[in-house]
Amino acid sequence: MTSKSYVVQMNANGLHGHGVVNGKAAGGAPRGRQGNDVHQVSVNTGPHHAAKARSRRQRWDVRPSEMAVKTRNPIRAIVDGMKLTPNPEKAMIALSIGDPTVFGNLPTDDSVHQALKQAVESQRYNGYAPSIGYQKSREAVANFYNSPLAPLEAKDVVLTSGCSQAIELCINVLSNPGDNILIPCPGFSLYKTIAVAVGVNVKLYNLLPKQSWEVDLEHLESLIDEKTSCLVLTNPSNPCGSVYSKEHLQGILKLASKHCLPILADEIYGDMVFPGCTFHSLATLSSDVPILSCGGLAKRWLVPGWRMGWILIHDRNNVFGSEIRQGLVKLTQVILGACTLVQGALESILLNTPQHFYHSTTSFLKANSEICFKELSTVPGLTPVMPSGAMYIMVGIDIDHFPGFENDVDFTERMVMEQSVFCLPTTVFDYPNYFRIVVTVPEEMMLEACARIRQFCQHHYRPHSQDSSELDQ
Amino acid sequence: MTSKSYVVQMNANGLHGHGVVNGKAAGGAPRGRQGNDVHQVSVNTGPHHAAKARSRRQRWDVRPSEMAVKTRNPIRAIVDGMKLTPNPEKAMIALSIGDPTVFGNLPTDDSVHQALKQAVESQRYNGYAPSIGYQKSREAVANFYNSPLAPLEAKDVVLTSGCSQAIELCINVLSNPGDNILIPCPGFSLYKTIAVAVGVNVKLYNLLPKQSWEVDLEHLESLIDEKTSCLVLTNPSNPCGSVYSKEHLQGILKLASKHCLPILADEIYGDMVFPGCTFHSLATLSSDVPILSCGGLAKRWLVPGWRMGWILIHDRNNVFGSEIRQGLVKLTQVILGACTLVQGALESILLNTPQHFYHSTTSFLKANSEICFKELSTVPGLTPVMPSGAMYIMVGIDIDHFPGFENDVDFTERMVMEQSVFCLPTTVFDYPNYFRIVVTVPEEMMLEACARIRQFCQHHYRPHSQDSSELDQ
Repeated sequence: MTSKSYVVQMNANGLHGHGVVNGKAAGGAPRGRQGNDVHQVSVNTGPHHAAKARSRRQRWDVRPSEMAVKTRNPIRAIVDGMKLTPNPEKAMIALSIGDPTVFGNLPTDDSVHQALKQAVESQRYNGYAPSIGYQKSREAVANFYNSPLAPLEAKDVVLTSGCSQAIELCINVLSNPGDNILIPCPGFSLYKTIAVAVGVNVKLYNLLPKQSWEVDLEHLESLIDEKTSCLVLTNPSNPCGSVYSKEHLQGILKLASKHCLPILADEIYGDMVFPGCTFHSLATLSSDVPILSCGGLAKRWLVPGWRMGWILIHDRNNVFGSEIRQGLVKLTQVILGACTLVQGALESILLNTPQHFYHSTTSFLKANSEICFKELSTVPGLTPVMPSGAMYIMVGIDIDHFPGFENDVDFTERMVMEQSVFCLPTTVFDYPNYFRIVVTVPEEMMLEACARIRQFCQHHYRPHSQDSSELDQ
Repeated sequence: MTSKSYVVQMNANGLHGHGVVNGKAAGGAPRGRQGNDVHQVSVNTGPHHAAKARSRRQRWDVRPSEMAVKTRNPIRAIVDGMKLTPNPEKAMIALSIGDPTVFGNLPTDDSVHQALKQAVESQRYNGYAPSIGYQKSREAVANFYNSPLAPLEAKDVVLTSGCSQAIELCINVLSNPGDNILIPCPGFSLYKTIAVAVGVNVKLYNLLPKQSWEVDLEHLESLIDEKTSCLVLTNPSNPCGSVYSKEHLQGILKLASKHCLPILADEIYGDMVFPGCTFHSLATLSSDVPILSCGGLAKRWLVPGWRMGWILIHDRNNVFGSEIRQGLVKLTQVILGACTLVQGALESILLNTPQHFYHSTTSFLKANSEICFKELSTVPGLTPVMPSGAMYIMVGIDIDHFPGFENDVDFTERMVMEQSVFCLPTTVFDYPNYFRIVVTVPEEMMLEACARIRQFCQHHYRPHSQDSSELDQ
């Protein structure tokens, strides 16, 4: 019952066949056949037992990779776990979705549609673009954001598939597994999703609600260590709607400069600030801190589905140098970037969208924010924080006064059940006991939602939680 | 000169401030403030020395991540290193670019443009789509590829930003660092680029040029081990233009079945086969091997820039199950998928593109391939392999008969210098001493290119390399 098995090394018999394994390919210049081209073949000499190659498995066992398992979108993870059963007697109002297009009241400008139609009609944008985008489109972005204090040329622009890919490329080019990045708390969940998927740690620095969500600089500085690869700053902020002053941004830059820390500036809401407020692009305020600024068409031009994003490379004293630039280029070569049709329309969009369109959007967002802030300011147990930009308003829940609820998730879940109003619980932003309201909804819907939120709170509010618990006894 | 430094632990004084680090966030349900919310603050008690936080760096030192460095597109790496200086007396003919749109002779069908224009005009596709794509568009793809032997529903379709992202998601959902994937040699370089970037090894299995690039099944089987996470099969093939018979595909499936190995079927050139040939979608031939089939609009509809790709999940006996499906969904949530405008046009594109458009494209590709094959078959030292589909023809260089050249890179570089014709050296596909010709160029350009290639070879060919080297002495 013995069967002998030999490993026979034989030359490949194909004209050019070669058994290159694990990337150790003939990158150089082999002439003719390679001497070390071998196949491993098991030859069975026993009569009764069939040869058996090194089998991977005897049975099917296909599992998702660790990366897939670790890739976690907390909004989905938490929201999908909630019981969101609206009150059948009230029409549902979703104040949770960060998509300005859902209610139809905030269409993009007609010039944007026209630009896209022309790009389609021209039939010039069907082929592959360079992986970092058409030169002409990169130039258009550079010209649009160029300023004397932070000059930009086409070579400083990388076009991406939405701002999400821009952020992904920036985190990935700056960070190795085991490094950490500093991200705001509360903050947009994608930073953590991207980092954790590739083994990069996150450290959350506090924003201060009583100071209009400014960064707690002391806390931020305490988190920096030798493994910190970058500071992520979101301005204007999702979910806070905050817009930082020049002085505050300078304070952040001073810290980054002191610790030689590059910054990923998520400025997707850049310039999307309320009339009367001023947005300062971070790069215009520093002459020594290298900055990767991420942006795109999604928010200001109200077309998030088009997936047109960009990275603006603001190098300083050649700190990024050609290495970081090349690293970004290489990362874009994997899946390429944005749809060529949108790239083709980009120059026209940036040149021709009228100022009144931008102004009309931000005026609307400001007016709606003011309505929401005013209405909710007088609701017992709630503390709204007035935003200055973006399209969100954060509302604090004084959870001690709502003994019926464990936390923000519980609170917002019940608000759906009783009032058919859904606001995003900020536990999804690693920050409990607030909820985030999207202020892009039509005014009458905002008023109705606020009235229902008031009703809900009035019903559940207890002036003093301890007194009320005594009453319960 | 001594300065004392204390670390003081103090409660956060913000209403909801908390110092969550490394993702250990309050995912659960904290009520009110957390007791362990602390800030680390350095307090300096000495008079002359400022407190110094754990500094990351004393000087700027920003380097690209290992992933960025490891992300290597061999086409760029090799071609960018070539001296491609055309002969100033001859117009340049590039037969190297796998983009059917560059010469303008192969426009997409008008119905495709119309569908896109309607999607823009409808203004219904500006917002976010679900990360795996609109339900309606997924349904359209499922209906288009549905067959009794491999049934598909919308739930089996994931829309992606081009076929490249489809391939990336499939490799990433199936493979952990340290695993290996089996990829064809010669083969499309992206598989290796994606794998190496995330620490997945590649093993190259041989294709046999004398058998119309069929898989060397023995070699393939010899490479399978316990760390093999999937088999990548490209059919029809880039760069070979081969289209496998039903019997050959069944032979591959038998191996996959024996070793319980899932297959990533790159079928971006699916159905793009010459009149008279038949394409068999791999999934229609197996009832037990789970298959992820990748495709998209790029090639068959001639719009590669639009970045519209898809994954068709052909599960078998629930081997993939909900885990792999969920893994794919989670991976799509990082950057989302395809541009919503193209998604919005997808149903109409799939329903309304006329058969004669597909036929006209493949007839042209066949005719041009035949011209090229016929012309180069009689060129001394060259061995073209007639393709059956896709848009490439591989041409072997009998390098022993060209003593003036080291290898295919050297050979093709000189052909640019002398004849202003550029063909891609197949070292970029880890396969030396062939070159790949793209057959989408206009017929007269193909004829001119072939004539120049003939001239080049006639000039450099030596009947017997040893004789010629004797002559050189």
